[in-house]
Amino acid sequence: MIQFVHPSTQDITLAGVLSALADPNRLRIVKGLMGQKDCMSCTAAAPCEMAKSTLSNHFRVLREAGLIRTTKQGVEHRNAVREADINARFPGLLKSILKHAEDE
Amino acid sequence: MIQFVHPSTQDITLAGVLSALADPNRLRIVKGLMGQKDCMSCTAAAPCEMAKSTLSNHFRVLREAGLIRTTKQGVEHRNAVREADINARFPGLLKSILKHAEDE
Repeated sequence: MIQFVHPSTQDITLAGVLSALADPNRLRIVKGLMGQKDCMSCTAAAPCEMAKSTLSNHFRVLREAGLIRTTKQGVEHRNAVREADINARFPGLLKSILKHAEDE
Repeated sequence: MIQFVHPSTQDITLAGVLSALADPNRLRIVKGLMGQKDCMSCTAAAPCEMAKSTLSNHFRVLREAGLIRTTKQGVEHRNAVREADINARFPGLLKSILKHAEDE
């Protein structure tokens, strides 16, 4: 069984968050997940057609930076932004970054 | 004579800015430069003892992302944060990131 690695809130670093978001596709994924009430499966959150391996890699980077939490529900992986954890660590940062994500 | 490459304001990208700041040393350099009235030379802005080549590389990454402007004054390179340009492109972003730079 796959074990997903999620850093604890205090282990989330600013450099890690910025690095994970320093990619237009990952920014779009996080922005897409933020707009959803329910967490979404990997494929549903994809910004466009993308190889499954590429997408998995993006989700792994986001997960390891502490930006998303992945859970397994049946055969699907569900992802949700760890908004409360990120805000507890760096208040206002995520919102400030994401509001510029569509300016480009 | 060395020609420094500075992107125009409209060519500054969010991913580029985040990527350049996704390093604790570069965050410290930018934070250090922000607190100075006059722009500083490379060495003066260094957060700690660092090999000159490493420091030059950090300044190059920051410059190419549009975060700093480097000018040559005599034998020194002077660096200043392009605060107005970054704010024109992504209002509030730089301040929001830098205020968390010392939380770690």
